Amino acid sequence: MTNPNHNRGNRFDYNRFFLKDTIRQQINFARTDQNQQREAPPLQKPCPADVVRIDIPDGEASLKKLCNMSVADAILKRESVRNYTSASLTLNELSALLWATQGVRKILSTCTALRSVPSAGARHAFETYLAVSRIDGLPSGLYRFLPFERKLAQLSIDSTIGHKAASACLGQRFVASSAVTFFWTVIPYRTEWRYDLAAHKVIAIDAGHLCQNLYLACTSLGAGTCAIAAYDQDACDKLLGVDGEEEFTIYMAPVGMRFM
Amino acid sequence: MTNPNHNRGNRFDYNRFFLKDTIRQQINFARTDQNQQREAPPLQKPCPADVVRIDIPDGEASLKKLCNMSVADAILKRESVRNYTSASLTLNELSALLWATQGVRKILSTCTALRSVPSAGARHAFETYLAVSRIDGLPSGLYRFLPFERKLAQLSIDSTIGHKAASACLGQRFVASSAVTFFWTVIPYRTEWRYDLAAHKVIAIDAGHLCQNLYLACTSLGAGTCAIAAYDQDACDKLLGVDGEEEFTIYMAPVGMRFM
Repeated sequence: MTNPNHNRGNRFDYNRFFLKDTIRQQINFARTDQNQQREAPPLQKPCPADVVRIDIPDGEASLKKLCNMSVADAILKRESVRNYTSASLTLNELSALLWATQGVRKILSTCTALRSVPSAGARHAFETYLAVSRIDGLPSGLYRFLPFERKLAQLSIDSTIGHKAASACLGQRFVASSAVTFFWTVIPYRTEWRYDLAAHKVIAIDAGHLCQNLYLACTSLGAGTCAIAAYDQDACDKLLGVDGEEEFTIYMAPVGMRFM
Repeated sequence: MTNPNHNRGNRFDYNRFFLKDTIRQQINFARTDQNQQREAPPLQKPCPADVVRIDIPDGEASLKKLCNMSVADAILKRESVRNYTSASLTLNELSALLWATQGVRKILSTCTALRSVPSAGARHAFETYLAVSRIDGLPSGLYRFLPFERKLAQLSIDSTIGHKAASACLGQRFVASSAVTFFWTVIPYRTEWRYDLAAHKVIAIDAGHLCQNLYLACTSLGAGTCAIAAYDQDACDKLLGVDGEEEFTIYMAPVGMRFM
């Protein structure tokens, strides 16, 4: 292929390398933390006992009840949606979306669980935070999904969370108009424990897996989303209260009901 | 969070950086190729006129006809499938899977088209190659999907393609037993043209988007897949006949019918 950018190729080499699997050949898998019998990180980020928990409807049941559109129609009708009505989402709808993206399908051991999305080595390195503006029955604020407890942790009550989220997303105004914005963080050690330096490409791919389920479940619900990869890293990490090293923001997706 | 690996943290810093969006702040977007009015790369890799083309059934119609399972059931029933029956897939089934993963929804201009999956900046940097062992009506061999022509390019007729594909995937034997293995390559310049050094994280995420659609469409069809990120980079690139620099293998997924 002709590439008009060819003389600049070297500048991209390192980043392109990241998308290849060449690095695997440089890793001594006998020396990974997993194979050295180091303790696996927990399947879910611990949540202090004194944090308020909120029960949410059964995600699997909500998904079955609400997401009846065919796979074909959902794929063919999916599009990026940046305009949302002022309607709220119900807790059942939220729970369906949470289960579609990160629901726990089966716990295999203390260090392995299967979820509703595929993940390299079943490592599932993500946590889900929600900037809630309009969910029936939930005060506006910041929440974290606890998929193994099937609850939400209430991290703050904050009527300005939508504007703060938009600001952390470089001022993309449609974020402020969402009913809820999903923020996914990664805890990279969950995957590094098994794959060492081969962890990071597959973590990014896994973020795509889960977000695609969000797109399709939203389409099925009459809601819409548009994933965001352009954001202020420090501002997002600060908004979510994560350290930016062992846990940091990787991807996000505002969700709201669609104009029909 | 306690991280037993903490003293090794620095070793991972560069790779973790790749998963952040900090790099965006270092890019002068006025200097990207797009903003310097350089010509955009073609939406589909050119295919010489003398390469044999094979008509395939309309992908959208095939998808609508065949993928009627609800989004909820497809998400809840999806699992990694590494055992396949000896059954073939029909051309209609193949076409549905191709359309689910990379179908063209709308052409907006000579440099932008919307597809059946989301892609950052609608850049869609992938090409789809198929190692075909058992598709009704197709000789075994290597093919490339031409989504803008709605055809397959026949790159080789080769009854041993399944074993070659398995070998290029580090000998993972289930690859050889698939009816067809999807190999996705990336042409990174398509996304670099717009996003410069911020291109590569979103390319990896985009690979996840499309593969998740493959999982769900397979589930709906009674087929199964298990994506592969561990492979011999040089061997895969050689198998597909790509240069390993301006186009290289990024992800793959064997597909076959499931035992029920």
